[in-house]
Amino acid sequence: MGMYLGLDAGGTGTRCWVADETQVLGCASIGTVKIMAVGEEVATERLKRVITEAAKKANVPLDSITRTCIGLAGNSSHAVCQWAERTIASVASGEIIILGDEEIALEAAFQGGPGMLVIAGSGSNVMGRCSDGTRVTAGGYGPMVGDEGSGGWIGIEALRAGLRARDRGVSTCVLREIEDFWELDDLGELVARANQRLRPDFSELCMVVATCADGGDALAISVLERAGEELASQVSLVISKMKALSTCKVQDFSQLAFTGNVLGKIPRVRRSMEAHLSAMMPELKFADKPVEPLEGAVWRARKG
Amino acid sequence: MGMYLGLDAGGTGTRCWVADETQVLGCASIGTVKIMAVGEEVATERLKRVITEAAKKANVPLDSITRTCIGLAGNSSHAVCQWAERTIASVASGEIIILGDEEIALEAAFQGGPGMLVIAGSGSNVMGRCSDGTRVTAGGYGPMVGDEGSGGWIGIEALRAGLRARDRGVSTCVLREIEDFWELDDLGELVARANQRLRPDFSELCMVVATCADGGDALAISVLERAGEELASQVSLVISKMKALSTCKVQDFSQLAFTGNVLGKIPRVRRSMEAHLSAMMPELKFADKPVEPLEGAVWRARKG
Repeated sequence: MGMYLGLDAGGTGTRCWVADETQVLGCASIGTVKIMAVGEEVATERLKRVITEAAKKANVPLDSITRTCIGLAGNSSHAVCQWAERTIASVASGEIIILGDEEIALEAAFQGGPGMLVIAGSGSNVMGRCSDGTRVTAGGYGPMVGDEGSGGWIGIEALRAGLRARDRGVSTCVLREIEDFWELDDLGELVARANQRLRPDFSELCMVVATCADGGDALAISVLERAGEELASQVSLVISKMKALSTCKVQDFSQLAFTGNVLGKIPRVRRSMEAHLSAMMPELKFADKPVEPLEGAVWRARKG
Repeated sequence: MGMYLGLDAGGTGTRCWVADETQVLGCASIGTVKIMAVGEEVATERLKRVITEAAKKANVPLDSITRTCIGLAGNSSHAVCQWAERTIASVASGEIIILGDEEIALEAAFQGGPGMLVIAGSGSNVMGRCSDGTRVTAGGYGPMVGDEGSGGWIGIEALRAGLRARDRGVSTCVLREIEDFWELDDLGELVARANQRLRPDFSELCMVVATCADGGDALAISVLERAGEELASQVSLVISKMKALSTCKVQDFSQLAFTGNVLGKIPRVRRSMEAHLSAMMPELKFADKPVEPLEGAVWRARKG
């Protein structure tokens, strides 16, 4: 019987599943293995450890692995891919497949078939795949100059909107709650913290914004609804790019899967995105729960 | 005869004028003395040096200075003000007045009187002063969560808009020219650079955007026009706040002065701001050249 490893190595964490032909036998998670963030030494140690731990929990020896599929943030860099391949090969046997972290999510949703996927977690990204395998994307340019509708975008936009509201004498829960979350004493410290040259992780703030929205704060609600609108706009861009391809069929852009904490855990964002898209494209079908990217990695490891 | 020092200590540079009762006798400039950016040791050495050099050029002994006025970015921090006072007192005689860097610009425009000033350089900020001295402000929350219409805002918005245009298959001069300016090889490097956790100085990009606009690039033109619109929106907010004050007279918000490289050196931004404001407030009078903040510092040093 084949034994398989699936890995999801994103910007904030790394998770590993060990599976046989039909079920998941063990899993483990650890911090990010992004070399840019933690350095090669830590990244190498983490990647080895998360694999070893998952295998131990599954009670599967690593020299019996048939194939590994890793979804790797930063897989556009050749050096990063080589590092990942070398590191995995040093602990586990078998073939190694390296995909982007967004590609395994697409596989989780459509198992090699056509469809569209929107990811909104700390970053954001939209992909579509046609029946002939052609892929189109929109967004995904990182927290400073892209990632509209993502957790990072929500954090920054909430601060911006909160400060503008303050200039107008309108009070909002958002600035107060972010001050508490960052453990600061006043607005001066808040502004200084937000503008530190070593950029804070604004995506941490999106759950603070969601809490304010649940408490009825109009500004927080409006930021989350705008996030959904931004995501809808990226999806509709992917749809028009798919439509323009002669190889793409109508059913290829008829269903939308999603994943990531923003769409998975903040219903307001998802409802807003779906409402905007439905108004433009009444035929579009929405998935009712988020996809698990690791299912895509394991699917691909099994398939080869 | 009295001898005076005027200093403009902003986020990117420090300038010093030495003047008597009627004219400027010498000047010098040096890098920023912002302690957050360069540390206290470098800041102290720079502040002493720029004063010493200006006095030397003016041929004025520093123990003959009657009064110094410094416009200091970060003057909301008590510790920073104490440091500036101590450092200036260690090289020059006389009284020391510490104002914000935006306050000396307001003095340069209105010599203690009422009026409105919009600053758009690397950051942005709008102030109004009523006849009774009451001041109102809008904006000025720094590059990450405020500073709409500033040089930093223009740099980031141009990148955002350029990447969105690229997603739509529209080519623009902006991404290409920013790649050249940052000496990068491809778009992947551009996105990585923009998203470095140690945030780049996006305000450096605004002259690149202005050059593209002068070459007819529609996207660059649109970003600069939006910058003007953002500044107009901040000004109109200050006007409504002044209107709401019973102590403010109509003539107090009847004229607008400006300063900073964005409004001083990119005519498109200024024309756009003025057009938007004129549409809302046909009576509003605009200054025809930027104010020199150092004139405000020297005016205040003379006046005491």
